[in-house]
Amino acid sequence: MAENKKATLSIVKIGGNIVDNPAALESFLYDFHQLDGHKLLVHGGGVMASKMAKQLGIETKMLNGRRITDEETLKVVTMVYAGWGNKNIVALLQKIGCNALGLSGADANTIPAIRRSSVPVDFGFVGDPDPDKTNTGFISKLIESNITPVFCAITHDENGSLLNTNADTIAYTVATALSEKYNVTIYYCFEKEGVLGDVNDPDSLILTMNREEYAVYKQQGIIVDGMIPKLDNSFKAINNGVSQVVVLHAKNLLSGKGTSLM
Amino acid sequence: MAENKKATLSIVKIGGNIVDNPAALESFLYDFHQLDGHKLLVHGGGVMASKMAKQLGIETKMLNGRRITDEETLKVVTMVYAGWGNKNIVALLQKIGCNALGLSGADANTIPAIRRSSVPVDFGFVGDPDPDKTNTGFISKLIESNITPVFCAITHDENGSLLNTNADTIAYTVATALSEKYNVTIYYCFEKEGVLGDVNDPDSLILTMNREEYAVYKQQGIIVDGMIPKLDNSFKAINNGVSQVVVLHAKNLLSGKGTSLM
Repeated sequence: MAENKKATLSIVKIGGNIVDNPAALESFLYDFHQLDGHKLLVHGGGVMASKMAKQLGIETKMLNGRRITDEETLKVVTMVYAGWGNKNIVALLQKIGCNALGLSGADANTIPAIRRSSVPVDFGFVGDPDPDKTNTGFISKLIESNITPVFCAITHDENGSLLNTNADTIAYTVATALSEKYNVTIYYCFEKEGVLGDVNDPDSLILTMNREEYAVYKQQGIIVDGMIPKLDNSFKAINNGVSQVVVLHAKNLLSGKGTSLM
Repeated sequence: MAENKKATLSIVKIGGNIVDNPAALESFLYDFHQLDGHKLLVHGGGVMASKMAKQLGIETKMLNGRRITDEETLKVVTMVYAGWGNKNIVALLQKIGCNALGLSGADANTIPAIRRSSVPVDFGFVGDPDPDKTNTGFISKLIESNITPVFCAITHDENGSLLNTNADTIAYTVATALSEKYNVTIYYCFEKEGVLGDVNDPDSLILTMNREEYAVYKQQGIIVDGMIPKLDNSFKAINNGVSQVVVLHAKNLLSGKGTSLM
């Protein structure tokens, strides 16, 4: 099959809880560097952004798990995600011999996005990227030069405005766009071991899940809340060419133990 | 002469006073984009960093015009320089059709630096780059792909630490390193029209200056204070292969009117 002839690319997404924990971050980056094949990192930074906003006396307003991003908040998230968070990760990767390059979606116009409509809810400077407009040529050139792209959760509208963009969505967008050229696996790292059959029992990890099983788990109320958009996104990625999505705890990145969606 | 066969590269350095002034910044970036030939931008952000430090209740300590950079201050300058300042410039350049890519010296290990000795003065996380270690291969590849590198004043020690580095020095370092491949002119933009024979008379602009004239002006007390390190750096750059250095006001970038050192 043609699919098997493509080079493999692992796209790993980590959340703000790891980015803000120096010990967990270093240990995670060490594992990330050991992954075989080409790789690309996407990171959030929400925990740090909320802390920084608080220090600056800026109120954090969330709706459906998304940050309402006024002008002041855009400045905070850009400072935290593209500045401290991103460059700190890049410096740590360089230390262990991984030739990382930090990027926002504005850099080399890698990820153009469209500012979200203010109706029904005005999220402010929040953008939704279009996989078809992703600059895959430039990102591939980096990857082929053994440079590891590290994306923060900031994009732009191609009209001078930076935009706050969900990190899961960045991973989805880049993965979908690059799936034509690479055999892509997305690793969504989060605070659990994967999708659990019983949320109170870590041993109830569901190892594999297809669309039909997902529908049943949702119906049974086993999969609820924040997992739903994450998994919807994951199945959409698979629909659009991504080979595999694994939802797992960051500490299990190398073993790949988690819930594998296909 | 071999010199004339090299492609030209303009390296422009702007200070924090422009980065922090939206109208001046947009107008400057428009001019920058009109420059002929390859180009590269280096920006400071000291004004914004001091404001942000104040907002966060962090005391700004300067010595000989350099910021003493403890751990908290390193976070602030990284947020401001590599985050908000850098990405805002990149988004504005993208808007006008300039394919900009923001970089710290940690990204793709472009500018490794050495943390400054704590003796006689401990400046903290401050680094001095070595032009010989600059990753000219990667920077040239960007330039040859019509991507415009935009460097902020952050480097790294290759051992996991980011370092605060003077933006004039970044410009000097990159210019010197790239002068083997390109016919480089450095444009140091600052708040005056250039070197003035009489500091109170804007019409007393000195149009050209060589080393001998510089020595005389210093002796006569015409060139003093902050201009001395800037001009010392400029003549060092010329000594090390840079074709020309122009000290000028940002508004005169396109005409090139200022003090031309050779």
